[in-house]
Amino acid sequence: MFKVKIYISLKKGVADPEGITIKDALYSLNYKEVEEVRMGKYIQLKIEGVDKDGVKEKVNQMCQKLLVNPLIEEYSYQIEELK
Amino acid sequence: MFKVKIYISLKKGVADPEGITIKDALYSLNYKEVEEVRMGKYIQLKIEGVDKDGVKEKVNQMCQKLLVNPLIEEYSYQIEELK
Repeated sequence: MFKVKIYISLKKGVADPEGITIKDALYSLNYKEVEEVRMGKYIQLKIEGVDKDGVKEKVNQMCQKLLVNPLIEEYSYQIEELK
Repeated sequence: MFKVKIYISLKKGVADPEGITIKDALYSLNYKEVEEVRMGKYIQLKIEGVDKDGVKEKVNQMCQKLLVNPLIEEYSYQIEELK
């Protein structure tokens, strides 16, 4: 069994109204040192698999087919084997 | 300037309908080896600061005051100095 952490973020240049709203809220709470906020998704999966390379291949497929919109988003991930 | 990556996830036991929907969608795409999906948030900040400890303190405050709902969510973060 493997645990996979997937980090999805908006590509540079893509508008992020949620991030701007959070930045404004932090500013009004007096955190004026915050220069930029970008909002993304964090997906944790548990997946059966034989080896890390096989899981890597599956995760890339799942991201490309379902989890990530490649027009506006980019992703990275970490895979950890559960003993 | 520091870059902070904040990972927010639902606590164990908190219902995650979005995660279940994704799991079902992956299942119907034939990724039947996926056992669990948990959906969370990934926030990237850029923040001015003097040292890492000061930034850490600020990030904890921002999480507790605004970004995280401590009843149902937990968080972790990484801080990296931008040169």
